[in-house]
Amino acid sequence: MGKDRDKQRARLDDAEVVAGNGLLHRRMLLTAGAVVAAGAAMPRAASAEPLPVESWMKQPGVGFNGYGQPSKYETAARTFASAPGTTGTGAARTPHQLLDGMITPSGLHFERSHSGIPDINPETHRLLIHGLVKRPLVFTLESLSRYPREQRITFLECAGNGQALYQKDPVAANVQAIHGLVSCAEWSGVKLSLLLEEAGVDPRAQWLLAEGADAAGMSRSVPLAKAMDDAMIALYQNGERVRPSNGYPMRLLLPGYEGNMNVKWLRRIKLTEDPTMTKDETSKYTLLEPDGKALQFVFTQETKSMITQPSPGLAMKEPGLYEISGIAWSGYGKISKVEVSADGGKSWAPAALQEPVLSKALTRFRMPWRWDGRPAVLQSRATDETGFVQPSREQLIAKRGTRSVYHCNAITTWGVSDKGEVKHVYA
Amino acid sequence: MGKDRDKQRARLDDAEVVAGNGLLHRRMLLTAGAVVAAGAAMPRAASAEPLPVESWMKQPGVGFNGYGQPSKYETAARTFASAPGTTGTGAARTPHQLLDGMITPSGLHFERSHSGIPDINPETHRLLIHGLVKRPLVFTLESLSRYPREQRITFLECAGNGQALYQKDPVAANVQAIHGLVSCAEWSGVKLSLLLEEAGVDPRAQWLLAEGADAAGMSRSVPLAKAMDDAMIALYQNGERVRPSNGYPMRLLLPGYEGNMNVKWLRRIKLTEDPTMTKDETSKYTLLEPDGKALQFVFTQETKSMITQPSPGLAMKEPGLYEISGIAWSGYGKISKVEVSADGGKSWAPAALQEPVLSKALTRFRMPWRWDGRPAVLQSRATDETGFVQPSREQLIAKRGTRSVYHCNAITTWGVSDKGEVKHVYA
Repeated sequence: MGKDRDKQRARLDDAEVVAGNGLLHRRMLLTAGAVVAAGAAMPRAASAEPLPVESWMKQPGVGFNGYGQPSKYETAARTFASAPGTTGTGAARTPHQLLDGMITPSGLHFERSHSGIPDINPETHRLLIHGLVKRPLVFTLESLSRYPREQRITFLECAGNGQALYQKDPVAANVQAIHGLVSCAEWSGVKLSLLLEEAGVDPRAQWLLAEGADAAGMSRSVPLAKAMDDAMIALYQNGERVRPSNGYPMRLLLPGYEGNMNVKWLRRIKLTEDPTMTKDETSKYTLLEPDGKALQFVFTQETKSMITQPSPGLAMKEPGLYEISGIAWSGYGKISKVEVSADGGKSWAPAALQEPVLSKALTRFRMPWRWDGRPAVLQSRATDETGFVQPSREQLIAKRGTRSVYHCNAITTWGVSDKGEVKHVYA
Repeated sequence: MGKDRDKQRARLDDAEVVAGNGLLHRRMLLTAGAVVAAGAAMPRAASAEPLPVESWMKQPGVGFNGYGQPSKYETAARTFASAPGTTGTGAARTPHQLLDGMITPSGLHFERSHSGIPDINPETHRLLIHGLVKRPLVFTLESLSRYPREQRITFLECAGNGQALYQKDPVAANVQAIHGLVSCAEWSGVKLSLLLEEAGVDPRAQWLLAEGADAAGMSRSVPLAKAMDDAMIALYQNGERVRPSNGYPMRLLLPGYEGNMNVKWLRRIKLTEDPTMTKDETSKYTLLEPDGKALQFVFTQETKSMITQPSPGLAMKEPGLYEISGIAWSGYGKISKVEVSADGGKSWAPAALQEPVLSKALTRFRMPWRWDGRPAVLQSRATDETGFVQPSREQLIAKRGTRSVYHCNAITTWGVSDKGEVKHVYA
């Protein structure tokens, strides 16, 4: 047995190390090779038979309920902060360090609100389509629900997600605080193009205004081309009606576009010749460049990734085999590759991508890693099917400066100490 | 305009009707053609501008919270029933008539429990792998979470789902009551084969016993071949830790196999030469055939589908365009085709399948339908990639009799009255 293990470990060293500082070939995820070779370092206990009979095996458990909740032992929750003097102007963030998979449970989907969550009565809520159309239309939730539907799994990301990386020094924060404004859900609803065709689009129309029914009257201009492409009036989120924090009873869904444009609590779509220049696209959601000019109408969330495990707050207790796992996404299409580095970008190796890899959806990547107990510097770098490569922080800042606030898709770096502590650092 | 509409309607009648009683070609889902042609019958109101300013637009909404919930206006809930004298021996059912998409939200995932939901402390819960292995192993939740993971979207279906169709007369019930014991989620966890390879499988082992930590000690025998193929120890459900009602902190996941074998609250896996013949696979979960013999170890949930909209309880108020929508699945692999009939099986036409179509996952199908206000008889029939065609009720009963209780995958029929009421009927 000892000899077998030595042999396996030797084979591992010879053949399966694919990049610096212990990154192993992704094929090791598919067999027990890595685990068996790392066996001595895996934290499972030797067998102690029989297992103790726990208290919950000695009496009937609790009964059924109509709508289930997580275990009382689980603490995964959104963190949130509001602007001074408000309770609902701010954002709530997804705890990616505690999640796995591609789907974000609806209770943990990020939220960005400009004046709280309106308490909308679905019976009286209306959606008006008007402006440059032949036949203005008004829909109730019920009448809209009669229309043919479609569904897709797609990410939503706040344009401001990751803005901490524009700061001069690395903030001492975890992945939830830095990148918690991205989530992914299955959305079902009615293709917007179907409704616009029924309304009859005036040839002069090139834009539309989308307006929410919140007290902020959140509104954004959207190119008509996007509306006719893959825009949806979303009625369902992960199978059930859209949650209040995500736009109940209906929201605009613009796959790949910055979250703010996916107007929640949608009440009005007005077709126009030009953009409306709302407060939400002039005073906010523009990118201030180094020369003082502002880039307006930057819609697409560009290619990005981050490592969620390990990440700050998740300490590694001992050297041995670990899985590096994270999520990648692109507003342009499918993720084609995610590379991982354990030596701060000196060497890279491709991670395994979890199927199905879907256009404009989160894609989870996984990479086996044998941590030797010495300091390490972890990074991930995504490439999408259009060839767009996620930039380093230096590259992004060289191009855009540090006043942009929005659309920060730079590579994130986690430093691992020899004690196994993980911290946000700059490479 | 009137002329345009007449022309479109004529084209619709000539070219787009694909089967009896108003079924339209699935391509009509992709364009506004069907909707515009059916325009006069769509229930949207004429425009009334401006929309009234509702109360929720006049004051800030509510603030953020850590873990979100559905709108107070939504009533989607599991229905449940317990055996007399118990609170937790029974089942809770998914309200498919109110859902859309492929993912079942975790709060509405079906549940079948044999002695309630145990209140498991994840700190003290253990998983033992022993029996015919070289190295017995014990895992804590923490140590198991260190292992490389995988994820997949897969359905779970209770073997007893749909058993109402074995009854002589059609039960007056909705889709939740008849077929609510099937759901679909994204599950993430550790490949069982990885753990078994680490434990070292004795060549004599051909089966394993999987045992739960509930008071019922629910346990089932599983062929080793399945364990080495696609079995998973699931730790996450739709992104977050598995819910208590679905096996917290860990469950066995056997994609495509009857729900009961996907042992929840998993505490022990014992490798054996032969099946263990537990109470849960001898006194229950066997199929009683007409000659009095019982079929044992029928593992795979066979190809099946059902229409969820319209379905009993969802009345149609007026003639016009409707979307027929439902879900299909197969324990053998991917769904390749779903056909829909509106005339009780006399004529069929293929529905559109929503991408991504995944192996052993729910697949939603959609079909545009112009209801003319006369009685109709709706059915769906699924075919999977292996060529397995969902049988009619007559075909299934001819083969298996009516004493089987389990594995009923017969075609379900909804009768639509001239008033638009939908009822469960036999064709």
